[in-house]
Amino acid sequence: MQSDILNSIEQKELIFNGNEKQVFATNNPSLVIFHFKDIATAYKNIKRANFPGKGAVNNAISSIFFDYLQKNGINTHFVAKYNETDQICRRLQIIPLEIVVRNYFAGSLSERLNIPEGVKASTPIFDLHYNNDELRDPLINDYQAVALGIVSFEDLKYVYETSRRVNDLLVALCQKAGIKLIDFRLEFGRDEQGNLVLYDEISPDTSRFWDAATDERLDMDRFRRDQGYILAHYEVVLNKLKAVI
Amino acid sequence: MQSDILNSIEQKELIFNGNEKQVFATNNPSLVIFHFKDIATAYKNIKRANFPGKGAVNNAISSIFFDYLQKNGINTHFVAKYNETDQICRRLQIIPLEIVVRNYFAGSLSERLNIPEGVKASTPIFDLHYNNDELRDPLINDYQAVALGIVSFEDLKYVYETSRRVNDLLVALCQKAGIKLIDFRLEFGRDEQGNLVLYDEISPDTSRFWDAATDERLDMDRFRRDQGYILAHYEVVLNKLKAVI
Repeated sequence: MQSDILNSIEQKELIFNGNEKQVFATNNPSLVIFHFKDIATAYKNIKRANFPGKGAVNNAISSIFFDYLQKNGINTHFVAKYNETDQICRRLQIIPLEIVVRNYFAGSLSERLNIPEGVKASTPIFDLHYNNDELRDPLINDYQAVALGIVSFEDLKYVYETSRRVNDLLVALCQKAGIKLIDFRLEFGRDEQGNLVLYDEISPDTSRFWDAATDERLDMDRFRRDQGYILAHYEVVLNKLKAVI
Repeated sequence: MQSDILNSIEQKELIFNGNEKQVFATNNPSLVIFHFKDIATAYKNIKRANFPGKGAVNNAISSIFFDYLQKNGINTHFVAKYNETDQICRRLQIIPLEIVVRNYFAGSLSERLNIPEGVKASTPIFDLHYNNDELRDPLINDYQAVALGIVSFEDLKYVYETSRRVNDLLVALCQKAGIKLIDFRLEFGRDEQGNLVLYDEISPDTSRFWDAATDERLDMDRFRRDQGYILAHYEVVLNKLKAVI
């Protein structure tokens, strides 16, 4: 694309208003504006705070990751970084499924299985969650997802294969940048042709990044656990990535 | 087998004392005695009661199912019904995994996903639970099971293929008997050669059986929900099965 398309984009009505993001229609029916807010939320929105500048940092980090994945053959919704806090993305029909890819035990999985945080998993773990606020995003499996009518078994094959490739690519990039990629969340949508496309963001809001040298947390867990200096640590991730791309 | 083997069996020390079952070693190192208790428990042992005769009915039902599966090519631990409340089974190393096979939504899955009980699933659902009292048998997935070191991906392939065959066989038998097979639980163990073998019981304690004509519950849910006449309804299952085998 693209500078001509980008230059002619006009923001239209709000079509999704999430906790940390907003999506706006544009004058181009296949494109949306993806806006990163400064708000942080945790524990299903029980804990909230405003961090001026977070939206810009997450937009920068997620743009780097999606651009890198796109260049390495992953079909994503990302078109271009638009301004400090906004991206231009393809308009998709969102699938209410979250794939959490885990290379190390941490967070809710450590609690559920009583395995200390930071233990390396002998195989990457792919957890499916049904994205449903009312049900509090329960862990589901392939059969439940198909029985719920969310996806087909064939869709799931693509989702796992793509998630595995994304993980390999991200682990390689993070390793170069001195970041331990503990886990991250992926979402998928469907384009007008019915193809599955990687959607959403990859940022310290939706991933766990630890400093490879010190195991210091550089992500949303600092907010969840009141460890402070949230934005400063998000910026560490951004600067480490900038140094290697 | 086997009357000579059965005649020479002597019961030795208790090797497993569960809520509803006991397993005893015998004078034959590859065989155990599997004893069905009269006790019923629900909600992770919060609710308990004694139903004189339940052990005998469950032993009779489970013997019918395992004998039928065995004759249809499923490799199971079942050797023979030994007396009213006991079976002779092969001694296995138990894998701490429960496979819940669901043809209809019911119970905990209905609660988790807010889908009414009795809705037919468009595909059989196979749920894996990590059999661990302390963690309260959490729902896990293939990747978590492998990362926990419980099974390999190859083991899981066998587990799913076998569970699917068992489901097809049980659905066919129950249909003939006028029983709607809502869901049931399977477990597996490993024999001395390392082969996976179907283990445990298939009974109204571990399955949901509904009367095909009336949708009346003929299983443990009667106890969970204080619907009464537990044993009489277990006996309905037994009599329906006896009429078709």
